[in-house]
Amino acid sequence: MIDFSTTYKEFLRAIEDKMLEYVKVIPPVNLYEPFEYLISGGGKRIRPVLAMICCGAVGNDPYIAIDSGVAVEILHNFTLVHDDIMDESRLRRGRDTVHIKWDVPTGILVGDVMVGYAYNLLPKANEHIRSQEIISAFTNGLIEVCEGQAYDMEFNRRIDITIEDYFNMIDKKTAKLLETSAIIGGLTGNGNVEEINALRLYAHNLGIAFQLQDDLLDLTAEQAELGKTIGQDIIEGKKTYMILRAVEKSSIPEDIALLEEFYKNNGLTINYIPKIKEMFERLEIFKVVKEKYESYYNEAQSCLGILKDNEYTQMLNWVVDKLRNRNS
Amino acid sequence: MIDFSTTYKEFLRAIEDKMLEYVKVIPPVNLYEPFEYLISGGGKRIRPVLAMICCGAVGNDPYIAIDSGVAVEILHNFTLVHDDIMDESRLRRGRDTVHIKWDVPTGILVGDVMVGYAYNLLPKANEHIRSQEIISAFTNGLIEVCEGQAYDMEFNRRIDITIEDYFNMIDKKTAKLLETSAIIGGLTGNGNVEEINALRLYAHNLGIAFQLQDDLLDLTAEQAELGKTIGQDIIEGKKTYMILRAVEKSSIPEDIALLEEFYKNNGLTINYIPKIKEMFERLEIFKVVKEKYESYYNEAQSCLGILKDNEYTQMLNWVVDKLRNRNS
Repeated sequence: MIDFSTTYKEFLRAIEDKMLEYVKVIPPVNLYEPFEYLISGGGKRIRPVLAMICCGAVGNDPYIAIDSGVAVEILHNFTLVHDDIMDESRLRRGRDTVHIKWDVPTGILVGDVMVGYAYNLLPKANEHIRSQEIISAFTNGLIEVCEGQAYDMEFNRRIDITIEDYFNMIDKKTAKLLETSAIIGGLTGNGNVEEINALRLYAHNLGIAFQLQDDLLDLTAEQAELGKTIGQDIIEGKKTYMILRAVEKSSIPEDIALLEEFYKNNGLTINYIPKIKEMFERLEIFKVVKEKYESYYNEAQSCLGILKDNEYTQMLNWVVDKLRNRNS
Repeated sequence: MIDFSTTYKEFLRAIEDKMLEYVKVIPPVNLYEPFEYLISGGGKRIRPVLAMICCGAVGNDPYIAIDSGVAVEILHNFTLVHDDIMDESRLRRGRDTVHIKWDVPTGILVGDVMVGYAYNLLPKANEHIRSQEIISAFTNGLIEVCEGQAYDMEFNRRIDITIEDYFNMIDKKTAKLLETSAIIGGLTGNGNVEEINALRLYAHNLGIAFQLQDDLLDLTAEQAELGKTIGQDIIEGKKTYMILRAVEKSSIPEDIALLEEFYKNNGLTINYIPKIKEMFERLEIFKVVKEKYESYYNEAQSCLGILKDNEYTQMLNWVVDKLRNRNS
C-alpha cells in the first residue's frame, strides 16, 4: 500500500495554519486566550483530515473542504473542553485542561463560543450548492454528540449496562463526529447519494474501531505517549467493552470481587490498575477487544468499494491502517 | 395607545405550544428531562414575540417567524443555564436552576444540546430566501452573547470598570439577542435594509433599557415577583450602572467605605442590601438609572419612524411601554 504520510502532513499543516489564522486572541482575552490554547494543543486532527480526503474521494479538490473540516475539529474540541469539566479530567494531550488552567466558568464559556465559531466556518447558501445539507449534518452531529455524552454520564450511575448500550453510546459519542466529517467532506466534493452513504458507513466503522482501540490504549499505552493517566477509564468507572466482556468471562471469585468493587464504587483507585490489567490479560480481554476493533477497521475498508478508485479513496484505506497501528 | 395585550397573549400561546411540541422527553432522559424543565419554566418570551412582531412590522404574517423566534428563545435559555452555573445562581424564575436540581455536568450538557436544537429551527436555504442571513445573524448572536458573558466575568475581577465598559458589556450580553430576534424577524418578513436596520437599532435601545431597568428591579422588586434573591447583583459583586454612578456621586466617608467594601470583597453579603438601598436612594441613583433607561426606551420608540405604519409597528411601540412599566 502507498504511504500517504506526506499528504497527511500537508493536510495537517494546512489545517493547523487555518486554525491559527482563524482564532486570534482578541478582547475579551479571558475568552479567546483559552480558545487559542485549546486549538493550539495539537492532536491527530483526524476529523478535518477525513473531511478533506472524503472530498477528494468523490473527485474534488480536498482543499475546498478545509473550512468545513476545521468546523468539525472546533466542534470536537468544544466537546472535549466540556467533557473534561464533566469528567473532572485534569490532563488532555499532556497539558492542563482549560478548567484546571483557568476555571470551570471559563471552560464552559470557551466551549460555547467555539460552537459559534464552528458554524461561521460552514459554507453559506451562496457559497456552496450543498450548503444546506452541510449545515444540517453539522447540527445533527452536535446534537448526537451531546446525546452520546449524556448516555456516557448515565452509564456511570447504572450497573446494568449491556454491550449493546455501550455500542449505542460510542456510536453517538465518538463515531458520529467522524461520520459528520466524512459526510461534510463528501458533500463539499458534491458526491452522490451512494458515495455519501459509503463515506458515512466507512466513518461509522472507523469511529467504533477507534473508540474500542482507545479504550484498550487507555490501559496499554505508555503514559508519555498518551498524555494522560494510564487507566483513566478504570478510575472514572467507565463501563467499556473490556469491562463488559470481563463481566461475562469472569468466573473465579477474585475476578468477580474485583469487578464488583469497580461497579460498587463507580471506578477503582489508581493502585488497582495493575490488578485489572492482569485480569484482562488472563481472561484474554485484550485479545478479544483487539479482534473486535480489527473487524470494524476491516469493515471500514470494505465500505470503500463503491467509491471512485482514486488516490484519496486509497488514502482512506491507508488511514484505517494508520489508526490501527497507532500506539496512543 | 392601543392595548396589544390580547395579541401578545396569542403570540405567547403559539410560542409555548411550539416549544412544548418541539422539545420531547426522549432518551437519553437525563438530557431531555432538564431540557423540557428549562423551556417549560415560562418567562416573558420577549425574544420570540419580538421576532414575530418585527416580521409583521415589515408587512408579513408574524406567525411565519415563530420557529426562528423560538430558536432565539432556546438560545437565550442556553445562555441562562450556563450563566447560572458560572454565577452559581440557585434560583431562576422562582425554581431551582438546572445545576441545582440536577448537577453541573447536566447543566452544561443540556445547554450544549439546546444550541443544536435552536439551529435546527432556523429556515433551511430551500425554505426561505433570506435563510443565509438568518443563520448568520443567529451565529453572530451566539458569539457575541458569549463575549458579553466573558466581559461580565472579567469585570468581577477588575476594579477599574468604567461606565463605557459596562455599556459595552450589556450591549453584548443582553441587547445582542434582542437585536438578533428583531433582525431575524425582519429578515423572515423579507424586510429591506432600512427596515432591518431600524429594527436592529430599536432592539438595541430596548435591550440596553431593559438591562438598566433589570439592574434596578434587582434591588427594588418584590422577591415573589422577581423569583430570585433581592440584591443578587450586589451579592455577586456586579458592577452595574448604579454602582458605577454611586462611585462617582459618593462623597461622605460611610458611602465611600461601603463601596470600597463592595469592591474589595467582590460583592457584599445579604445583610448589606438595606444599606446599599439607603445609599442609592439618598444619592438619587434610582432616579438617575430610571432617567437613563427611560431615555433608551424613548430612543427605541423613535427608531420606529421609518417603518410601515401598521398594527405591528404600533405594537413595537406598545412593547416598549409594557416593558418599562413592568415590576419584575
